[in-house]
Amino acid sequence: MLFSSEKALQRINSELLLLEFGNRPAELYEPLYYIFSLGGKRLRPLLTLMACQLYEENFEKSLKPALAIEVFHNFSLIHDDIMDQANVRRGKPTVHTKWDIPTAILSGDVALVEAYKLIMEVDENLKTKAFSLFSKTAKEVCEGQQLDMLFEKRQQVSVAEYMEMIRLKTAVLLGFSLQIGALVGGASEEEASKLRSFGENIGLAFQVKDDFLDAYGQASKIGKTIGGDIVANKKTYLYTKAMELADDKTAKELGAIFENQKLAVDDKVKTVMAIYDQLQIEKETKILMEELYVRAVKNLSGLSPGIMKIAKLKAFADELMGREH
Amino acid sequence: MLFSSEKALQRINSELLLLEFGNRPAELYEPLYYIFSLGGKRLRPLLTLMACQLYEENFEKSLKPALAIEVFHNFSLIHDDIMDQANVRRGKPTVHTKWDIPTAILSGDVALVEAYKLIMEVDENLKTKAFSLFSKTAKEVCEGQQLDMLFEKRQQVSVAEYMEMIRLKTAVLLGFSLQIGALVGGASEEEASKLRSFGENIGLAFQVKDDFLDAYGQASKIGKTIGGDIVANKKTYLYTKAMELADDKTAKELGAIFENQKLAVDDKVKTVMAIYDQLQIEKETKILMEELYVRAVKNLSGLSPGIMKIAKLKAFADELMGREH
Repeated sequence: MLFSSEKALQRINSELLLLEFGNRPAELYEPLYYIFSLGGKRLRPLLTLMACQLYEENFEKSLKPALAIEVFHNFSLIHDDIMDQANVRRGKPTVHTKWDIPTAILSGDVALVEAYKLIMEVDENLKTKAFSLFSKTAKEVCEGQQLDMLFEKRQQVSVAEYMEMIRLKTAVLLGFSLQIGALVGGASEEEASKLRSFGENIGLAFQVKDDFLDAYGQASKIGKTIGGDIVANKKTYLYTKAMELADDKTAKELGAIFENQKLAVDDKVKTVMAIYDQLQIEKETKILMEELYVRAVKNLSGLSPGIMKIAKLKAFADELMGREH
Repeated sequence: MLFSSEKALQRINSELLLLEFGNRPAELYEPLYYIFSLGGKRLRPLLTLMACQLYEENFEKSLKPALAIEVFHNFSLIHDDIMDQANVRRGKPTVHTKWDIPTAILSGDVALVEAYKLIMEVDENLKTKAFSLFSKTAKEVCEGQQLDMLFEKRQQVSVAEYMEMIRLKTAVLLGFSLQIGALVGGASEEEASKLRSFGENIGLAFQVKDDFLDAYGQASKIGKTIGGDIVANKKTYLYTKAMELADDKTAKELGAIFENQKLAVDDKVKTVMAIYDQLQIEKETKILMEELYVRAVKNLSGLSPGIMKIAKLKAFADELMGREH
């Protein structure tokens, strides 16, 4: 288990189940109780608690912002699942599948309001800061989702564009989780910003790793078929990097295969993987992950909590990056 | 024109056009610039400015919360139009029609964040109050919309349920518009609450009047066909009141006509109107509107700004209620 997080995770889950969003009309609030009952890694609130504990033994003060972030994250999942027409999450029907799209839109809206209410339950002197950082992050997450949808329709997406998209869609919220936890724990703005940068870079690495595992992981460990992204024409880091490295002829070929709806699934994966191999995409991706990891960890040097405490956070990142599932 | 509101309206409109939501990705922010370019009565922000002016000559301080409320209102319009599958608003395509549903969901989400940012631009001593009142109102508006959708699917909706639905969906935001304007202008909490009650009751009256005009207005003046709500099977005050007053036989008949999809439009309207006439729904509705108006105005008595200033606000309500379009 990640650091001493078992206790923290239990606490987060029990607090999530205790949240009272409202009761009437039931159809509006049931989806929120439902989505939190589905469980999850609770990665973001764990990061908040952990960042707080770097500066203050007791993580109690960071619970509300941690919950705010998890509620916000679930707001974005509810709305994203509508947009992505995803029917299953964590093995259960998504909100708009179990209820309907209007209910999912409204429940998501209410979740965003609840997230705001929770983020404002920090100490008086941090309210303004927490509010503006949260608002900025919320907008960036929306921007990332919009870019993700736009990229699906575009044939050409550069590596830089892809990295910016995943930064907005995924990494900034991880960064904010650490930043607000640190601030609540009593960190200086400067140290909190460094922890944010650490979180953002780990977030980027985490997403690239996800892309990597889809192509180079072991099916039995990742719990889904290898090449799922290829089959779904998802423009991952692997794809955008391949497009960048390929000569005109290969790029054209790769683009055509991706868009070809008639190709048998196995053939499609095999052909794309052959191009990836030819372009050494596996190696390139490993290099990037290592770079992002190094960039992340650099932010941890010289922080006031001292090496022993920081080591826990680094171990958490190592575990995330070393994961095979 | 309502009170000296021409100047206030111009100011609101120019401030709305000056709002900078963001630029990138364009597809996320264009819908927001678009919806504010469509115009509108700006009833809510006008109420905020007017309530402020009861206590402070200059309405400048109330501009940000006024804009917050208009931005929030448009967030709810964008999302409601998706849920209601409405393709036209103010003679122009709705956001999800001009763009698509995912874009409308995300643009709405961003609008909610922007509304929060604006509402927090009140004086330091009012931030917590403004935030919690706004959050409460936002949730209530979502609850009202959910009830509205639920009622569409139900055959039986009582008058009390209908009134509670329109209170949440429409009236509370009008109440909040006045309350926050008054607070920003320097009113006591007690006076601000009275103005809120005034706003809520005017909001109820306003919505019931809307229902009334759909059946008893002049087509040329309301700019749409008489009986549109009947054709659309909308459970209005008129319908719920008729169901309450009707004997079992008539209630069954009315319910059956409403649900009958095969009936010619003209016949349907004529038959329902005959039942309404038989049950004296026109008179009943006028009585309720008068009651709500009296209840609203009662809240204005004894307020500190004095009779002359209060008269302006009352004149505004009179104009709203006396409208035939």
